[in-house]
Amino acid sequence: MQWTKVLGLGLGAAAFLGLGIILGHFAIPKKANSPAPSISAPQDLDLEILETVMGQLDAHRIRENLRELSREPHLASSPRDEDLVQLLLQRWKDPESGLDSAEAFTYEVLLSFPSQEQPNVVDIVGPTGDIIHSCHRTEENVTGEQGGPDVIQPYAAYAPSGTPQGLLVYANHGTEDDFKELQTQGIKLEGTIALTRYGGVGRGDKAVNAAKHGVAGVLVYTDPADINDGLSSPSETFPNSWYLPPSGVERGSYYKYFGDPLTPYLPAIPSSFRLDLANVSGFPPIPTQPIGFQDARDLLCNLNGTLAPATWQGALGCHYRLGPGFRPDGNFSADSQVNVSVYNRLELRNSSNVLGIIHGAVEPDRYVLYGNHRDSWVHGAVDPSSGTAVLLELSRVLGTLLKKGTWRPRRSIVFASWGAEEFGLIGSTEFTEEFFNKLQERTVAYINVDIAVFANATLRVQGTPPVQSVVFSATKEIRSPGPGDLSIYDNWIRYFNRSSPAYGLVPSLGSLGAGSDYAPFIHFLGISSMDIAYTYDRSKTSARIYPTYHTAFDTFDYVDKFLDPGFSSHQAVARTAGSIILRLSDSFFLPLKVSDYSETLRSFLQAAQQDLGALLEQHSISLGPLVTAVEKFEAEAAALGQRISTLQKGSPDPLQVRMLNDQLMLLERSFLNPRAFPEERYYSHVLWATRTGSVATFPGLSNACSRARDTASGSEAWAEVQRQLSIVVTALEGAAATLRPVADL
Amino acid sequence: MQWTKVLGLGLGAAAFLGLGIILGHFAIPKKANSPAPSISAPQDLDLEILETVMGQLDAHRIRENLRELSREPHLASSPRDEDLVQLLLQRWKDPESGLDSAEAFTYEVLLSFPSQEQPNVVDIVGPTGDIIHSCHRTEENVTGEQGGPDVIQPYAAYAPSGTPQGLLVYANHGTEDDFKELQTQGIKLEGTIALTRYGGVGRGDKAVNAAKHGVAGVLVYTDPADINDGLSSPSETFPNSWYLPPSGVERGSYYKYFGDPLTPYLPAIPSSFRLDLANVSGFPPIPTQPIGFQDARDLLCNLNGTLAPATWQGALGCHYRLGPGFRPDGNFSADSQVNVSVYNRLELRNSSNVLGIIHGAVEPDRYVLYGNHRDSWVHGAVDPSSGTAVLLELSRVLGTLLKKGTWRPRRSIVFASWGAEEFGLIGSTEFTEEFFNKLQERTVAYINVDIAVFANATLRVQGTPPVQSVVFSATKEIRSPGPGDLSIYDNWIRYFNRSSPAYGLVPSLGSLGAGSDYAPFIHFLGISSMDIAYTYDRSKTSARIYPTYHTAFDTFDYVDKFLDPGFSSHQAVARTAGSIILRLSDSFFLPLKVSDYSETLRSFLQAAQQDLGALLEQHSISLGPLVTAVEKFEAEAAALGQRISTLQKGSPDPLQVRMLNDQLMLLERSFLNPRAFPEERYYSHVLWATRTGSVATFPGLSNACSRARDTASGSEAWAEVQRQLSIVVTALEGAAATLRPVADL
Repeated sequence: MQWTKVLGLGLGAAAFLGLGIILGHFAIPKKANSPAPSISAPQDLDLEILETVMGQLDAHRIRENLRELSREPHLASSPRDEDLVQLLLQRWKDPESGLDSAEAFTYEVLLSFPSQEQPNVVDIVGPTGDIIHSCHRTEENVTGEQGGPDVIQPYAAYAPSGTPQGLLVYANHGTEDDFKELQTQGIKLEGTIALTRYGGVGRGDKAVNAAKHGVAGVLVYTDPADINDGLSSPSETFPNSWYLPPSGVERGSYYKYFGDPLTPYLPAIPSSFRLDLANVSGFPPIPTQPIGFQDARDLLCNLNGTLAPATWQGALGCHYRLGPGFRPDGNFSADSQVNVSVYNRLELRNSSNVLGIIHGAVEPDRYVLYGNHRDSWVHGAVDPSSGTAVLLELSRVLGTLLKKGTWRPRRSIVFASWGAEEFGLIGSTEFTEEFFNKLQERTVAYINVDIAVFANATLRVQGTPPVQSVVFSATKEIRSPGPGDLSIYDNWIRYFNRSSPAYGLVPSLGSLGAGSDYAPFIHFLGISSMDIAYTYDRSKTSARIYPTYHTAFDTFDYVDKFLDPGFSSHQAVARTAGSIILRLSDSFFLPLKVSDYSETLRSFLQAAQQDLGALLEQHSISLGPLVTAVEKFEAEAAALGQRISTLQKGSPDPLQVRMLNDQLMLLERSFLNPRAFPEERYYSHVLWATRTGSVATFPGLSNACSRARDTASGSEAWAEVQRQLSIVVTALEGAAATLRPVADL
Repeated sequence: MQWTKVLGLGLGAAAFLGLGIILGHFAIPKKANSPAPSISAPQDLDLEILETVMGQLDAHRIRENLRELSREPHLASSPRDEDLVQLLLQRWKDPESGLDSAEAFTYEVLLSFPSQEQPNVVDIVGPTGDIIHSCHRTEENVTGEQGGPDVIQPYAAYAPSGTPQGLLVYANHGTEDDFKELQTQGIKLEGTIALTRYGGVGRGDKAVNAAKHGVAGVLVYTDPADINDGLSSPSETFPNSWYLPPSGVERGSYYKYFGDPLTPYLPAIPSSFRLDLANVSGFPPIPTQPIGFQDARDLLCNLNGTLAPATWQGALGCHYRLGPGFRPDGNFSADSQVNVSVYNRLELRNSSNVLGIIHGAVEPDRYVLYGNHRDSWVHGAVDPSSGTAVLLELSRVLGTLLKKGTWRPRRSIVFASWGAEEFGLIGSTEFTEEFFNKLQERTVAYINVDIAVFANATLRVQGTPPVQSVVFSATKEIRSPGPGDLSIYDNWIRYFNRSSPAYGLVPSLGSLGAGSDYAPFIHFLGISSMDIAYTYDRSKTSARIYPTYHTAFDTFDYVDKFLDPGFSSHQAVARTAGSIILRLSDSFFLPLKVSDYSETLRSFLQAAQQDLGALLEQHSISLGPLVTAVEKFEAEAAALGQRISTLQKGSPDPLQVRMLNDQLMLLERSFLNPRAFPEERYYSHVLWATRTGSVATFPGLSNACSRARDTASGSEAWAEVQRQLSIVVTALEGAAATLRPVADL
């Protein structure tokens, strides 16, 4: 304990008397036995503590965490997943380095698994009904880790079972346009099996689009052109490089929404109402199975029919044709069919989130929430264990300071290890459903580190504008891994940047979709969120994602040898996240810069004006109210920034700061409208909902315009454009109102 | 300024140093230039100020306010309504007795008026097409105030225009059951005009029910049995007594929902999207017109057909028959028909809310909101000017203390004068739509005083459980008007009481429906709300409501002579509301007792167990999770109460109290679920939504059970029962979670 500082606090009380006289006019104290003034106010971000934390985040320990976490496959709800729940609880309850408390929260959720007794198979069936060729059922056991009983067979989670059989066609990415192209080419799709490749559209969408054309079954593979920079031979792939081996198959959830499929908007506790399976929407409509490119080559390079368009060609070493059926001069007789037998089963399983908390010393009811999922498809060294390894190192370093009595944050810090993310962000979504109000009222921000390291070139951050400045502050102070003496910030700006009207050239943050557990926090709860990772040099690879993603080749050695030898990128992510956590939890004034939303709104507005203005005018719809609303937001955000600056120069009262901080924390909430997008699930943030329209503006407006474009004035579709415009205007005006001085009418 | 008290504050800093040492372990101060501790903390409720306010609330001034407010008819959006906007602004901007600021907020809303050129008429048309009798178009000019051009013709707002003509039938209250009864009696309803009486069901429902049976037009009258304790002669009615004169007609809105009909969920600012009229729902489907009982007697006492059931009889001095058509021996020939010609017009009109604020000295971002509507149907001395007269007196007394520098509340106090309430709570609803987030985040409670005095017997309060205790505290300290020396509380308990498991016999609060402007605050925003009035001795009258309600006889003299001579009941309401405002705005700890929700939940639970338990069990639905949730809520609410008591004994830090107060203030929000009742508009409070089911339990459960009762297990209706049960369990569990210590997981 530091006595000198306690004394300093006593002296501060003198200044406090003087101020009291000035303010007495408004706040005349009433009683002798009035409650004492705040004792806990002065705590602010401590740069020494910050430096200590930065120094203690240890690359070697992250590596050891990763080794342990990825030692065995730990599919959601598997015994090993349960073991890791215990590991997390043990770490977070450790008397030397643990948190204040930790607890597992279990939900009963609907997962989908392939049958163990009856594996999914993809066969070529000759005209007599004989199986003349079979695709691999498992990935090749290249490192001894691909063969165990816990390595789940590649499958498309939530695809229905069924055994469709038909002529094969090639459908590129399986987008709506791709199937239209096949139709245009005169190819009869009814009853066929469509071979598609990953990319271009969501997993489940391929089957949805296919089924509309009568396709009976769907195969999905990863083309070496998309993932391996064209390389495909075993000598060029893992374990000889980071590239995907020919037998590698990307697993994944093919469910359209997120959250437990049976309990939308309700937590999946045992007693909760569950939808009848017949009423569940969002599962693929037809049997679907993923395969490796080795198998895809056998199928695709033997296809008959027209040559596929140039953009449909890939790197399998042959000319891709469209089908239907095999060519007479190929490996299979021309009238052979493909049989896709899927025996997936839906099962109610227990899946747990683990939560740990460090109680805030001053404002324990303000939560800085940091999380990652725990479940993997197989060993999941990269996805998600690289993030979990960082999570554990962060909690260890902060926990140790805590247990030593060196430090306790101003606000509470909550660590989360989510369950069943791979099946559709299930653990995090159920958590937001169960604690909706508590979280919405109190959460300062959500920080997600799922895959910590995709590659070791640069930081990449997705997030909403209020978090930009704290990310910048943090990354300017941390040295970038790799050669040179750049900060993470200075390295980052070389890879991702944009010209900001306010700041000039700055690193560019991506926007948050629904790729990881931040989705329910930003879209459903309206909590300012971010996702942090180290990633590629795009000049060096065009891989869609790290090549062994969701395969049995995503192992510790893969990370250790190829992705991040030395774990310095992991360390960089840990330091970045750690600095952000400390800044959010310890700063007297919340480092959320709401005025950074102004640039987003202005750019959305400009896109609307430039790309939709003329069209809207034709239909007598004015953007005037939107212009006014954006201007009002800009002015109020700037004025609030001014008031904060002024206050920071003085000795503000902690309640005053709390009130300002509430304005900053709650701004993101004012963009939520649960009635804006009735056809969407959870999406209620009017700035970040899914945008399907082509114009990079407010999503509701963009989408409504793209639907209305070809309809007449006065149509329902144009009414929806006007409604969406009013929803945005109301949200922006409402947001601006929350930024005004709190006693203004 | 009181120097001695400022000095007392300086001494308090010593205790603060001691506490600092104890807490230093967790909250080690970090910087010499740390912000100073709170200076404004000690302000708590000042009993001297409270007494001053109670003493200054002046019955005579309330009377003079009422005289001015009710001098002219001030229908929503009329010139006189606009004059009153100016009057309010002038009062609230008065340099001697005004507020800190005041402003009018104008919306463009859809109102409905009878045509001035072509008045609505109700005629009896003989077999040759001649008009043989006409109902009165206006009320009799009894006091010289019923005849001016600003007295709007009685009409059913939002009833469509049309000129249906047909045989007359008598349909009692016009409920579904009433029309079924007519059908059972073999009466052909197609093409008839149904004469109904007020009561039993909402205004608009009469036409909705009628139209389902092919009825072509609806008349609505007020039976002397329901409003006049059976009296009906001019000598027994106003101006000779408080009873309704024979020509009096209740006007009213026949719109089913509330808020501007064209802009649901959006503020009705000029630029907002407006529904096409064809897409508006909730207007009566057929022409409807209200008439006085004088006219109703002419129609009803000449009806032919079967004698109406005993419960359908009234006090018009004849036997009520069902029709159809007139009896041959009556005043009209037997084949005469009734023609209802309605020429109502929908008009977009400007309607304003007036808002005034007293800035809080310590927590300006916490709003105690007090409001009433301003618009009336005619002079509206009782409805709403009795409430507005109280509002102006309250703002004058508080404003004077403010301007003198004697007092400023801890939290902000917002006064509101709503526009267009009579058409469907339009001003208040648009306000909640425009400032949804700001209000939801910051409003401590909403206090509504619409009709301040229905009669002078007793207080009557409707409200949610958290406000019970503050109402009790306030009313125990104020003397009741009238003979004896009772407190308002002690008088109140004689009229409305219940046996509380926690407190024994206490006055009973009613629950909040949608009768006045509190509706959007409680149902849409989830803000703890109350409605306060003085009302009847039910042993002395069975009048549905004060007899001249919504007629041109609701005048100043009516109030002055019959309702509250001396205005002591008005004063009692002003004092009650004033004390509540001061307690909510000035108390260091918010006087919202959340544990008082436990009795409500327990009683809802018991009703579910007793009246639905067996039925649910038959369908394999367990109430177990609900029992657990209620118990959890009870335990957490009690524990929070304990923590508050403990803290109150010490010298708590203002931030600590702010955090607790946030828990208290925000509890009501945790009962909101905007997806619970998709078919309802605005209703999202899972405890207070409209209950149509007969069991007095959670409304969603009650309603779903009543719909499912006659369906088979496994039906969609039973699934909805389970969904509603889960919604309640989730809300209660979520609410309990917000009451736990804030750093608990």
